[in-house]
Amino acid sequence: MSTKHLGPGSVAPPITPGKLRLYSMRFCPYAQRIHLVLDAKQIPYDVVYVNLTRKPEWLLEKNELGKVPCLEFESGEILYESLIIADYLDEAYPQNGLYPTDPMAKAKDRLLIERFNTVITIMYKLYAETIVDRDLFDKALAGLEVLDRELAKRGTPFFGGSKPGMLDLMIWPWCERADIIRVLRGDQYVIPRERLLRLLEWRTAMKEDPAVRGSYLDTETHAKYIRSRLAGSPQYDMLASA
Amino acid sequence: MSTKHLGPGSVAPPITPGKLRLYSMRFCPYAQRIHLVLDAKQIPYDVVYVNLTRKPEWLLEKNELGKVPCLEFESGEILYESLIIADYLDEAYPQNGLYPTDPMAKAKDRLLIERFNTVITIMYKLYAETIVDRDLFDKALAGLEVLDRELAKRGTPFFGGSKPGMLDLMIWPWCERADIIRVLRGDQYVIPRERLLRLLEWRTAMKEDPAVRGSYLDTETHAKYIRSRLAGSPQYDMLASA
Repeated sequence: MSTKHLGPGSVAPPITPGKLRLYSMRFCPYAQRIHLVLDAKQIPYDVVYVNLTRKPEWLLEKNELGKVPCLEFESGEILYESLIIADYLDEAYPQNGLYPTDPMAKAKDRLLIERFNTVITIMYKLYAETIVDRDLFDKALAGLEVLDRELAKRGTPFFGGSKPGMLDLMIWPWCERADIIRVLRGDQYVIPRERLLRLLEWRTAMKEDPAVRGSYLDTETHAKYIRSRLAGSPQYDMLASA
Repeated sequence: MSTKHLGPGSVAPPITPGKLRLYSMRFCPYAQRIHLVLDAKQIPYDVVYVNLTRKPEWLLEKNELGKVPCLEFESGEILYESLIIADYLDEAYPQNGLYPTDPMAKAKDRLLIERFNTVITIMYKLYAETIVDRDLFDKALAGLEVLDRELAKRGTPFFGGSKPGMLDLMIWPWCERADIIRVLRGDQYVIPRERLLRLLEWRTAMKEDPAVRGSYLDTETHAKYIRSRLAGSPQYDMLASA
């Protein structure tokens, strides 16, 4: 359940003292990154969902690009861009540090997050294009295999070790959604288990993590949202309470 | 002066003990970012220039994407992606810290670096397209005005205060090259002084900074390189000694 997504003519709810305010959209994977970090670090926050097709005027006043995720502070300060917010939160709230303390290990995790952008770009193409290119699907799998090999090398259940770290959380939203392509396009797009054994085990373990459970949605729900978006009218409020 | 850019069939020079090794291209603005950080922090390094059209085999062995900048360590570790390398260097070598110590101020500098990507993208279009769009030039100026206003707000000669910080250094390579468009396209692309008064003063001050002087090239030299690239045969060795 979530509250309705606010649009034009709405009023921005007042900031709750002692809490960060996250502007989000229930199905946005970039916004989910920030839910995950806030939940993993147990930072108190409230959420205001916004309609991204018809944006509320006050969102554009707070952040001229009108993007989510957008984080607002009691001071009135505003941050956006998921990776910048995530890094900020990890620095400003040192509890449950999400990066390795060694700068080299941290830089390598940031490189893997950066390289994952290739997989993200392909996933959007696979949803949106009329003719799905099997080579594109294989290219996405190759991108995931890089991560699978990395997990094997690290020999830990999560990239972050015994619990999810920044790399785990930053790639998670798209891994949660990875089976949408099968639902939308058919069984030739089943993720081949044998090629991604470690990563699929990781996915199972991630689903059990309390921070991940806070924002988790199943494949059918994600696919239903994507279908509505592809049909031209994204159902932001699909899960909203009255 | 610089050494020649190495291509296929070359041998990677051995690592110098006690020094970082930067793989670079003399005219690459992303690689220049790392020269600037290394010079500003006075970290000992040597440079190996590589031909990006015909890459040496050993570069692809070190870094499968074959990109520069690429930083190699005595341990054999490899980092790439300019912003990730820059952040790494600032963390691993705490002398002359380039970011504000306050996480919020740091995040805002990183946001401005991120937003500058819009200016970078437009600059490449302005060089490369046959029909130059005056609106595009105005859009680039609008992006620069954001920075001009930010400088006015900070009231310091540099974004970093009394000396260049990370934001100054990360946007500098494209500011050094900003007049190329006038040289290539004519006087209607002169940067209007009155719109960017603070930023142009900043540019003058930046040129005097010792770290900036280490990699600085004048507009004519940059334009000559861009012309060679647009003609299909980039003259990487234009400034190389025998």
